[in-house]
Amino acid sequence: MKTTERRQSLKEALIAAAERSIDAHGLSGMKARELAAEAGCAVGAIYNVVADLDDLVLAVNVRTLTMLEAELAATVGAPSGGGGNSGADGAATAQLVRMALGYLRFAAANTQRWRAVFEHRLPDGKELPGWYRDQQRRLFAFIEHPLRDLQPDLPPEQFGLLARSLFSAVHGIVVLGLEEKLGAVSLADLEEQTTAILTALGRGLVASRP
Amino acid sequence: MKTTERRQSLKEALIAAAERSIDAHGLSGMKARELAAEAGCAVGAIYNVVADLDDLVLAVNVRTLTMLEAELAATVGAPSGGGGNSGADGAATAQLVRMALGYLRFAAANTQRWRAVFEHRLPDGKELPGWYRDQQRRLFAFIEHPLRDLQPDLPPEQFGLLARSLFSAVHGIVVLGLEEKLGAVSLADLEEQTTAILTALGRGLVASRP
Repeated sequence: MKTTERRQSLKEALIAAAERSIDAHGLSGMKARELAAEAGCAVGAIYNVVADLDDLVLAVNVRTLTMLEAELAATVGAPSGGGGNSGADGAATAQLVRMALGYLRFAAANTQRWRAVFEHRLPDGKELPGWYRDQQRRLFAFIEHPLRDLQPDLPPEQFGLLARSLFSAVHGIVVLGLEEKLGAVSLADLEEQTTAILTALGRGLVASRP
Repeated sequence: MKTTERRQSLKEALIAAAERSIDAHGLSGMKARELAAEAGCAVGAIYNVVADLDDLVLAVNVRTLTMLEAELAATVGAPSGGGGNSGADGAATAQLVRMALGYLRFAAANTQRWRAVFEHRLPDGKELPGWYRDQQRRLFAFIEHPLRDLQPDLPPEQFGLLARSLFSAVHGIVVLGLEEKLGAVSLADLEEQTTAILTALGRGLVASRP
């Protein structure tokens, strides 16, 4: 193997080890020594292929976002799942509900990996790389799509903010539900609540058209 | 001073020290040694007045929830702030908006203390004390009130779940906004988004009445 191939292969082994470590113990349990042992290299050799452990975490997190994107993509155009009213507005609301339920189920099934995306903080001065931001943007594009149907006259620069707020609202329901910070609640109840809130939001966005 | 008074006075000094420590360095920066030094006692003496440091954190957190309750109480019956439609439904929606904005501003002004409420996890097997749960319940009662106007026919046992979901949605907007996990956003934009989402939710809950 050439040096560049060896480096690439070591990098992939380290990312896979980081992913397994996060799945097993969460982000805070990740140790350079254990990743090196799993990937079969010396601890110092990690820093020949990545700048620091943050780069490994970002590589795992972007995979998580890519998995989530596939999950959301699978909900597009699926049969109606709870919008309740008919026509284009109902279809867009039903699409919001399906995406929110997709997000909830993804987080419930991949809790540690999903947590790592939100727990990870870059050190001051280090910025998110472009390939990470691109993946974030692709995810938000999914949310913006039904919002364009619900609020067709919203100025273009506002869609990003609205998509972000809608995602944040769903994220709040999922995170406080799964972490049981407000007491235990079943996944079935969480699904029902997510459906009720997103249905109300979709209808309210239609009713709030300028 | 009698022994019980001395114990009570030491306990209060430790809670005050814990509160200052959380304000300054966040929950993860709290050290028993520093609390003892500030309260003028030996490290071991802490455990004469509280079972463990979790009890000190819970005492700080319940104060935070009490401050938040006062903030929400101040929004009740205040002049309309964004509901937009008239009558009882408009008033209830406007009240939801004011409470959400009150929560956002409280979190922005007391970020470390507010974070500590959500970051703190009790060790397995230890349960939240009754006085903490009572304070949580008082807070949720504020949210349930306008929901009764918006969905008068909802079965009583459902109000608690809906209030919790609504709080979670607002919490999501506030937490991802203030932590800047999705990129920086100004407090003014966050306020505008919170208003838009809660207004849509209020209207949608009215439109979703059975």
